[in-house]
Amino acid sequence: MEFWGVEVKSGESLKVYPGDDTIVHLSMACLGEVNKDKGGEPVLLYVKFDDQKLVLGTLSSDKFPQISYDLIFEKEFELSHNWKHGSVFFNGYRAEAQVGSYPVEHYFT
Amino acid sequence: MEFWGVEVKSGESLKVYPGDDTIVHLSMACLGEVNKDKGGEPVLLYVKFDDQKLVLGTLSSDKFPQISYDLIFEKEFELSHNWKHGSVFFNGYRAEAQVGSYPVEHYFT
Amino acid sequence: MEFWGVEVKSGESLKVYPGDDTIVHLSMACLGEVNKDKGGEPVLLYVKFDDQKLVLGTLSSDKFPQISYDLIFEKEFELSHNWKHGSVFFNGYRAEAQVGSYPVEHYFT
Amino acid sequence: MEFWGVEVKSGESLKVYPGDDTIVHLSMACLGEVNKDKGGEPVLLYVKFDDQKLVLGTLSSDKFPQISYDLIFEKEFELSHNWKHGSVFFNGYRAEAQVGSYPVEHYFT
Amino acid sequence: MEFWGVEVKSGESLKVYPGDDTIVHLSMACLGEVNKDKGGEPVLLYVKFDDQKLVLGTLSSDKFPQISYDLIFEKEFELSHNWKHGSVFFNGYRAEAQVGSYPVEHYFT
Repeated sequence: MEFWGVEVKSGESLKVYPGDDTIVHLSMACLGEVNKDKGGEPVLLYVKFDDQKLVLGTLSSDKFPQISYDLIFEKEFELSHNWKHGSVFFNGYRAEAQVGSYPVEHYFT
Repeated sequence: MEFWGVEVKSGESLKVYPGDDTIVHLSMACLGEVNKDKGGEPVLLYVKFDDQKLVLGTLSSDKFPQISYDLIFEKEFELSHNWKHGSVFFNGYRAEAQVGSYPVEHYFT
Repeated sequence: MEFWGVEVKSGESLKVYPGDDTIVHLSMACLGEVNKDKGGEPVLLYVKFDDQKLVLGTLSSDKFPQISYDLIFEKEFELSHNWKHGSVFFNGYRAEAQVGSYPVEHYFT
Repeated sequence: MEFWGVEVKSGESLKVYPGDDTIVHLSMACLGEVNKDKGGEPVLLYVKFDDQKLVLGTLSSDKFPQISYDLIFEKEFELSHNWKHGSVFFNGYRAEAQVGSYPVEHYFT
Repeated sequence: MEFWGVEVKSGESLKVYPGDDTIVHLSMACLGEVNKDKGGEPVLLYVKFDDQKLVLGTLSSDKFPQISYDLIFEKEFELSHNWKHGSVFFNGYRAEAQVGSYPVEHYFT
């Protein structure tokens, strides 16, 4: 297991490939540095996964500068946000796929 | 293990079947995009499970746009909410039932 | 592992027996539906365990409508609260006692 | 695994000894009952561990009546706080030291 | 597994080396004692890992005195913050690298 973190800049999106036998655990998102004159508006976070585009929550510099997550990805996913004035950071860790998640009958054969 | 997320639209409810030997871990709920003129009211989230209808918390666009959860479902459940002006997103992950949850005496026979 | 949730009504308390070789993981508490004229006051949550009565936090409809927990019970416990105007919901999941929690020397004999 | 909770009264500190082959998982802290005339001031929580005294966060009755933790102790630790008007409750669970935390090379010899 | 906590003083940064076969789980950060005249401004937290400098969230004494994390480090990392008026505490625990994270095919050979 090892730390994993990415910066998603304003106006950009970021595709993440966890890799073979690997999961990415997304543990949190937070706003980067805020220009005081431009803070406060709600910032929506999004994930694209398979054919879905889903909301992952709302940040704002004065009320919700960060969110905790407990999300796991094995396949490719794409992170984005609608903040015009800065970056959003997504942090978590990488881990190998766990033996504990295999069915019991395989375990005892 | 793999990401799992659903959108529950205004006025609708959504039944989820985790599937054989599979659990759904519900990790969070959040409001979707908010029409500024229609934000701020409390939005109740509900789950139907067996014969119970239980409250899963309250969201509002200006005070609580998201909730973290640590909830696990093996059987069918049904998600709903009372927001008139948008969707609620429920995100988490799917996993196979874990060997670690079996009783010790089975493990050593 | 399976979802577990209970409603504790105003003025009542609820005893929970997890059962043999079973734990209850308490993952959250939240207020039920609020009568607008009667919201906002602090609601204290309590657990009775062995001979202790302990506080499990404070909810209020306008500031803290829910709490996240990571609490585990194997023996009987009793949940209560002091809200006069509605129910508190406690949600989590049930699981069998885990082999992984046994000492290493037992594991290898 | 079993529930564990303690009350740390105003002006006191509490030493906790997890015991042999046992860990204490500290999952949360919360303020006890508040005298309305005396609420609102920040309450600092502290842990003494080895030769360190560390801050574990700030509570206040009107803004942060509780904190979630994910902290683990095997050796003795001491909890305290600076609230003059009431108790702070620390809740979590006890568990035996886990086999899963041993190095791989020991596991396969 | 054992508790781990550090104080990062104003104007300083702190390098952490988890050690061989060991991970550091970072579970929370919080502000230390606040001079009342100097509280309230946003405090950014940073981690340096490999060649990246990433934001780990924003604290402030009156709105966000603490953050919960679920972050894991095996290699060296460096914590810092931009608070001019006090220390930030980072708490969590140390654990040995887990067998459960190894690939299934190794486990059964």
